[in-house]
Amino acid sequence: MIKVGIIGATGYAGGELVRILIGHKDVEIKWYGSRSYIDKKYCEVYQNMFQIVDDVCMDDNMEALADAVDVIFTATPQGLCASLVNEAILSKVKIIDLSADFRIKDVAVYEKWYGMEHKSPEFIEEAVYGLCEINREDVKKARLVANPGCYPTCSTLSIYPLVKEGIIDPSTIIIDAKSGTSGAGRSAKTDNLYCEVNENIKAYGVAGHRHTPEIEEQLSYAAGKPVYLNFTPHLVPMNRGILITAYASLLKKVTYEEVKAIYDTYYKNETFVRVLEKDICPQTKWVEGSNYVDINFKIDERTGRIIMMGAMDNLVKGAAGQAVQNMNLMFGLPENQGLMMVPTFP
Amino acid sequence: MIKVGIIGATGYAGGELVRILIGHKDVEIKWYGSRSYIDKKYCEVYQNMFQIVDDVCMDDNMEALADAVDVIFTATPQGLCASLVNEAILSKVKIIDLSADFRIKDVAVYEKWYGMEHKSPEFIEEAVYGLCEINREDVKKARLVANPGCYPTCSTLSIYPLVKEGIIDPSTIIIDAKSGTSGAGRSAKTDNLYCEVNENIKAYGVAGHRHTPEIEEQLSYAAGKPVYLNFTPHLVPMNRGILITAYASLLKKVTYEEVKAIYDTYYKNETFVRVLEKDICPQTKWVEGSNYVDINFKIDERTGRIIMMGAMDNLVKGAAGQAVQNMNLMFGLPENQGLMMVPTFP
Amino acid sequence: MIKVGIIGATGYAGGELVRILIGHKDVEIKWYGSRSYIDKKYCEVYQNMFQIVDDVCMDDNMEALADAVDVIFTATPQGLCASLVNEAILSKVKIIDLSADFRIKDVAVYEKWYGMEHKSPEFIEEAVYGLCEINREDVKKARLVANPGCYPTCSTLSIYPLVKEGIIDPSTIIIDAKSGTSGAGRSAKTDNLYCEVNENIKAYGVAGHRHTPEIEEQLSYAAGKPVYLNFTPHLVPMNRGILITAYASLLKKVTYEEVKAIYDTYYKNETFVRVLEKDICPQTKWVEGSNYVDINFKIDERTGRIIMMGAMDNLVKGAAGQAVQNMNLMFGLPENQGLMMVPTFP
Amino acid sequence: MIKVGIIGATGYAGGELVRILIGHKDVEIKWYGSRSYIDKKYCEVYQNMFQIVDDVCMDDNMEALADAVDVIFTATPQGLCASLVNEAILSKVKIIDLSADFRIKDVAVYEKWYGMEHKSPEFIEEAVYGLCEINREDVKKARLVANPGCYPTCSTLSIYPLVKEGIIDPSTIIIDAKSGTSGAGRSAKTDNLYCEVNENIKAYGVAGHRHTPEIEEQLSYAAGKPVYLNFTPHLVPMNRGILITAYASLLKKVTYEEVKAIYDTYYKNETFVRVLEKDICPQTKWVEGSNYVDINFKIDERTGRIIMMGAMDNLVKGAAGQAVQNMNLMFGLPENQGLMMVPTFP
Repeated sequence: MIKVGIIGATGYAGGELVRILIGHKDVEIKWYGSRSYIDKKYCEVYQNMFQIVDDVCMDDNMEALADAVDVIFTATPQGLCASLVNEAILSKVKIIDLSADFRIKDVAVYEKWYGMEHKSPEFIEEAVYGLCEINREDVKKARLVANPGCYPTCSTLSIYPLVKEGIIDPSTIIIDAKSGTSGAGRSAKTDNLYCEVNENIKAYGVAGHRHTPEIEEQLSYAAGKPVYLNFTPHLVPMNRGILITAYASLLKKVTYEEVKAIYDTYYKNETFVRVLEKDICPQTKWVEGSNYVDINFKIDERTGRIIMMGAMDNLVKGAAGQAVQNMNLMFGLPENQGLMMVPTFP
Repeated sequence: MIKVGIIGATGYAGGELVRILIGHKDVEIKWYGSRSYIDKKYCEVYQNMFQIVDDVCMDDNMEALADAVDVIFTATPQGLCASLVNEAILSKVKIIDLSADFRIKDVAVYEKWYGMEHKSPEFIEEAVYGLCEINREDVKKARLVANPGCYPTCSTLSIYPLVKEGIIDPSTIIIDAKSGTSGAGRSAKTDNLYCEVNENIKAYGVAGHRHTPEIEEQLSYAAGKPVYLNFTPHLVPMNRGILITAYASLLKKVTYEEVKAIYDTYYKNETFVRVLEKDICPQTKWVEGSNYVDINFKIDERTGRIIMMGAMDNLVKGAAGQAVQNMNLMFGLPENQGLMMVPTFP
Repeated sequence: MIKVGIIGATGYAGGELVRILIGHKDVEIKWYGSRSYIDKKYCEVYQNMFQIVDDVCMDDNMEALADAVDVIFTATPQGLCASLVNEAILSKVKIIDLSADFRIKDVAVYEKWYGMEHKSPEFIEEAVYGLCEINREDVKKARLVANPGCYPTCSTLSIYPLVKEGIIDPSTIIIDAKSGTSGAGRSAKTDNLYCEVNENIKAYGVAGHRHTPEIEEQLSYAAGKPVYLNFTPHLVPMNRGILITAYASLLKKVTYEEVKAIYDTYYKNETFVRVLEKDICPQTKWVEGSNYVDINFKIDERTGRIIMMGAMDNLVKGAAGQAVQNMNLMFGLPENQGLMMVPTFP
Repeated sequence: MIKVGIIGATGYAGGELVRILIGHKDVEIKWYGSRSYIDKKYCEVYQNMFQIVDDVCMDDNMEALADAVDVIFTATPQGLCASLVNEAILSKVKIIDLSADFRIKDVAVYEKWYGMEHKSPEFIEEAVYGLCEINREDVKKARLVANPGCYPTCSTLSIYPLVKEGIIDPSTIIIDAKSGTSGAGRSAKTDNLYCEVNENIKAYGVAGHRHTPEIEEQLSYAAGKPVYLNFTPHLVPMNRGILITAYASLLKKVTYEEVKAIYDTYYKNETFVRVLEKDICPQTKWVEGSNYVDINFKIDERTGRIIMMGAMDNLVKGAAGQAVQNMNLMFGLPENQGLMMVPTFP
């Protein structure tokens, strides 16, 4: 049994980690960390866990945790993981960080977009960006995995193959993203109240959202040169789900079959990436509660552009599910262990 | 492996059966029956099943089905199962009927409330009302199980112990129920359009809903005499979930502890009934996607009444989950096999 | 022009007051009070008012306000109005209090249910309970109006005639109420976050909600004796709307026509109470944004009970609209001035 | 009093026309046309109109209607208006067509995108595209107004000034649009059921939506040359509201102030277009129920693009409200008569 500790177990991503790990037969959760709810029973914070989880919440003590568990998930605000990690800890325990601390290789870029000093830049190089479909082999050997952001996961998986194969012009990429409200977290803010979100849609973080450089970095690896793009997230009145609609100019005339073949090459052996059939647009409801990303595309011959679409559950493949997928790889388990949840509909 | 056939696999309850049975390690679905979609791939009707289910939809041929499978689930409109079942079929296959055809023992009551002639009244006596927590032993031996209605499941489990123990006056029972919209099924009606349901709540079937006599029958068994009650369902703008709020006059002065002890007696060994802690009101979100029923109560000394509350997922414990629970019992499997889905939140 | 001041203009009820009063041709809003947003432009708090309201938010200074305006609306938490009002103020200005401070005549009952000391009990006797359809003549002469609570407005209007006419047994009244989330106000609490409310329904304040004694008091006047009843509110995933479903035992055998005639006697000349046609259940969507209350009932001969239903917009007839209706009466204007908003659908 | 007839009064746009026109002091609705509900009381179809509208639904007889009224609104499916209109009718009555029949000047383009033959191409030239902010003077003189589509209204108003002023490269325009579900109409289709739309978002009509050529035509006038662009609509789980997020490459380096000045030049005297303050993103909730379009933009210096955003209520400014705005112009009334509804929040 893999002994697991979670720091930040009472946020929405932390809660989803608990849900998934409870159904994972090789895992035992030993530590429900939550600074806000120390000594409170976990199932009093999340009543869905009544009679399922009997533990109480613990402080975020990474030192103690490193001695008690095999792997730590940090589902915490930016900066916390970087401020706690050190060589002594990493020598004892694997860490899967769901925050952005180790996602961006250029510390200056991180510090600019996140507006904070990075507290342990010495581990950035070592950290592996845990997008399993792309970095699988590196993840297997990692001590420290930077679990990708929700928008970057969906965006990168949808766009990466076409950049890598030179089908689209990376300088023309525009990503228009839509997310359910759980992506905004569980802290009590007026903007996230039911009456403010319901019956409403808005863009936010226009031309300045922190996930922009993360997507750019990943697509730059595919392009072999720096990529700058537009990324605009929107808040949608639903709990879960991310949909990205991405646009780019085609570098050459391609047929549907040619593009489909490219996606198939990259994903036909991937359990969690489903390239849909022709003319079927991804819908977030079809992946809800599961670790799938549904992808499709449409060529617009009138404008010479291609429209790429991706849908996933932001809390699963966009956070907790992908984190468990990384854990499976790091511990030599089947990659899909505990992750074969069938999407719930309706 | 238990070979399973589903008649009515493309309704919401049928879809949920598929979702649950795919995760059930002792089951193989052999027949996806759907008269509306014959020869269409199942995953084209429910795209969440893409790359998970590869079968096509079949006709509702119960004769052929009886030869091909071990158990048939009928998730169809009222009257269909009763019109198809016969001794030859029942001698070959077990049937779990999710419709109301065999739930009510008095055929006259059935025909009055459902406004149709019962086509096989000879099997009503044999049929077992599949509320596992109450009729467990009978279910184990049954060939034909009448899977309880969604409202009756939630209502009966919430109220039954207090009637049985003589705590409340059965003639004063009032059940005010609230259901998500999946309970209305997937047929295309103006009343169920998004814009008609969203931002709206209404009562329907007031003093005439068909689940009334079903609840009355079950509570009559507990009371040892006929029970007549008020049952008012409401349509709530959410996909899943049933909440019942029931009221009854106390027959004697009781304490919280006494009533709690009664519920515990009935349910402390029940996997799927969770009696919540004092003053915690059940919420449908806490059971979503799972087979749990959450129950609690509040004594109002000012009025001498008790308020009983129950919450469950109408498609799981209120339909497909309970059907699988019945199947497990009928085939000698652990009752919770394939049913330990952790509730999804948020 | 009536000069109006609002204390608590940035809560949801305050915002609705602004919306309605802007469309009222005899009114000028002179004071947007909001302690939380002093000196901030009102339209920066509520962007829907951009280019419509240009004022900034002011402090809650009732003394200054009394000199500046003809009528003050207090849309504030319990206790504030009672702590500010005095004879000097009331001699200069009329007050319509949307809080509960002056709704309950028995100060001991108020203090028990609201858990606070009443700061100006000397004005309770004078205050008029502003349910226009019942207390119209008193409202016209009032200096201080206690604007009814949302649940009590809907409940009382639905039940009052049948109690008054001796049709139902008041001791059997049970009110099961459902409210949209704007009723919970705009303060940032985890329980009111989008993800906690959406796809969820729950009861709250069971056997203890503060609106209980308010409803009881009004129905006691109708009954001519003390009435104790059960009132259970539920939180529904929608922004606006209250639906009440009330149950009571009939004292005698009555026909539909007889009960309809009673409701018609009370309401046929009332602009804002619509008694629906036979078998049409009220829906909150049909009154959204308007000052209407839709009412209907169903006799259940099987149980000897009657089910009474009422629907309204909690922010309009349940708060701001009724407050304006009271203002119209107090200033000798047509009662419906500025209140003929047609319900918005869908 | 202007006598008004509505053909298609029981669709969502027709219902909104009724709501708005009831509040319009110079208008009398004489004809509620609805082929589906002939002889049924209008308020039985839309219960929000109970005791407000007492008329019954009539057939779609344009000949009879032309003699009875001063202006006909056709809120009907594509093709109907074109099949009914003729010179005799137009000589007697003004027509405001809410369908697409007369929006596109090139009949070949219409027939290609709409897949039907145009039945009265002889009136296309005469018809005025009723985007008041751009074609005000022509609307005043028109007999036949083509009321713009919902997406084109929001898109054109958001983008037009920057194309006209040569700030952006029209060949780079990408419009990512999001709409509430009322835009899909009231016909009973599985895709529009509550459970299919709720908790879901999807793109549809990708690279093929019929509003594309309409937007292109309007922006071509601004550009002085043909414009081809990408337009992708999405279905959002809310009743009302359209948000467009549009992207284009800047043709030169511009400051925020320069672009703001352009928008202000075009819209500062427009009642219904609100250019928001810096960094405030439009939200559909802020315009709900009103005739406003909220617009803003953000320059992204990193990519050399500008992001343009617009929000409006699809049933008001996107349909019925704009139709009434056109009517006001055609009849010499103040343009905002009956249209000053304050947006409803929440």
